[in-house]
Amino acid sequence: MTTQHDYSIGIHGGAGNRPELPAQEARIKDSLRMILEQGRAMLADGATALDAVVHCTRLLEDDPLYNAGYGAVPNSAGHFELEACVMDGRTLKAGAVTYVDSIRNPVALARRIMDRTPHVMLAGQGAADFAAANDLATVGQAYFQEGWRKHGTAGEDALGTVGAVARDRYGNLAAATSTGGQKGKLPGRVGDSPIIGAGNYADNDSCAVSCTGWGEEFIRTALAAYIGFLVGRQGLKAQATAQVAIEYLVAKVNGTGGFILVDRTGQIATAQSSAYLRCGWIEHGGEIKTALRAAIQIARMER
Amino acid sequence: MTTQHDYSIGIHGGAGNRPELPAQEARIKDSLRMILEQGRAMLADGATALDAVVHCTRLLEDDPLYNAGYGAVPNSAGHFELEACVMDGRTLKAGAVTYVDSIRNPVALARRIMDRTPHVMLAGQGAADFAAANDLATVGQAYFQEGWRKHGTAGEDALGTVGAVARDRYGNLAAATSTGGQKGKLPGRVGDSPIIGAGNYADNDSCAVSCTGWGEEFIRTALAAYIGFLVGRQGLKAQATAQVAIEYLVAKVNGTGGFILVDRTGQIATAQSSAYLRCGWIEHGGEIKTALRAAIQIARMER
Repeated sequence: MTTQHDYSIGIHGGAGNRPELPAQEARIKDSLRMILEQGRAMLADGATALDAVVHCTRLLEDDPLYNAGYGAVPNSAGHFELEACVMDGRTLKAGAVTYVDSIRNPVALARRIMDRTPHVMLAGQGAADFAAANDLATVGQAYFQEGWRKHGTAGEDALGTVGAVARDRYGNLAAATSTGGQKGKLPGRVGDSPIIGAGNYADNDSCAVSCTGWGEEFIRTALAAYIGFLVGRQGLKAQATAQVAIEYLVAKVNGTGGFILVDRTGQIATAQSSAYLRCGWIEHGGEIKTALRAAIQIARMER
Repeated sequence: MTTQHDYSIGIHGGAGNRPELPAQEARIKDSLRMILEQGRAMLADGATALDAVVHCTRLLEDDPLYNAGYGAVPNSAGHFELEACVMDGRTLKAGAVTYVDSIRNPVALARRIMDRTPHVMLAGQGAADFAAANDLATVGQAYFQEGWRKHGTAGEDALGTVGAVARDRYGNLAAATSTGGQKGKLPGRVGDSPIIGAGNYADNDSCAVSCTGWGEEFIRTALAAYIGFLVGRQGLKAQATAQVAIEYLVAKVNGTGGFILVDRTGQIATAQSSAYLRCGWIEHGGEIKTALRAAIQIARMER
């Protein structure tokens, strides 16, 4: 049995350590709200969680406010490299892409890899060749340079990454994550965003989660997988899971970042160890909420 | 307090579905034993688990019996691409490399990335450039073609991957994993071997594990992270962990493969859902054991 309005969706636009400028705050909340409205329209109309998270992540990629897609940040060589992934909690199928520099919407490529190959993840020229053979929209580096100029000071501190999680009215969960990388990273650096179990995870039996922050710390703690296990194997609810997981990130590696999750019942939770987490959500078909900080906030340890 | 002989080490040379030829069985066991002798010499002499697993994985990479390094298998374009990673359970630091085609010992490059960059993982040309600037030994594709010819029929069914796990006499854990890929994979495909939490994990508070098999299935279940979670958060012992984890792999995605783990007390466990797992170990400084099947074996479901 499905209930038309029993869907939930959450999105985020990155974590960071420097507060937003007031003028930017309004702009970010407007953007998150507009994207959630589109997610709501899809889910209310019967779309799957998978389709909704990919669509919302594409919109986040296309807005230069965020460090993903158009708003990506340059690496140490001044080059733009992008990464993304998507996971379907119904089947545990996943698609991911890293080290691509000419794909307009990396999350769309990740979806295509999931749908049309036996693989989860493609990198570099192999990913680009697959994209070309599968009619993905390509752009030049000039596209990202233009986005970076619009991105402006917002990017100076941005710890990467946008993402979306959803539960559709059939009870299916999905998560998608996309990033334009760490500013000044070494060429070829792979962050947590395309790594299933690090920056992204979804399983109908537990939850869907998308992370953002200092990617290496999410990889070293396998944080997205840890979050899934807390729900799926230990039966924790969304809020308790978020609390335990953000404490784990700080205790284990003094990690910086945050995440948004939706559990199998449709409850949303957010947590951060950074100064902010741009996020928004709709719980059980209710009102749109947006925030620049997570509901659960903990401090990192002094180094 | 440390005890000179309280070290444990385990290695594996891949999982697969076709039984070995009898003549090959002896050759594999001899190779595993020789490599374990070297691991023992290091650990008895006070080496760290980290140094021991990297050294043993290098030896596995250099033997064309295994699908890693010299014995890598060609992708769909006839090209050889390699991946590896290493993780230090003491610090949770990790290094990984994917999509490289000219590095003689990918695990050595993974270690260098861990030691000399703020990153965990580098891919493709970025990884190759870093390797060149850090004096890693390079080879041409001819090196891998030669290894592949020596590898011979052993490679037809090899589901990738070698690896090593260890507990040193100071109580530190480490894991390393390396692969020459899936035969016929798409160019740029990233498997589980370089992915922390999928094919490899180590944490002094739980265990060290190295996996082998159909990589996508280990990524989709975040199996190495799951194994760490079972020990570290749920307090399961090594054998119980191996049993629960291999059942999870089959129940969730009908996965094919196996793994070897050493827990924080130095207990070794092996499990497989494939027909064989080439493995060997020394527990608590005792005798060398080798086997072509894991101690725990479960059947995959009929498709």
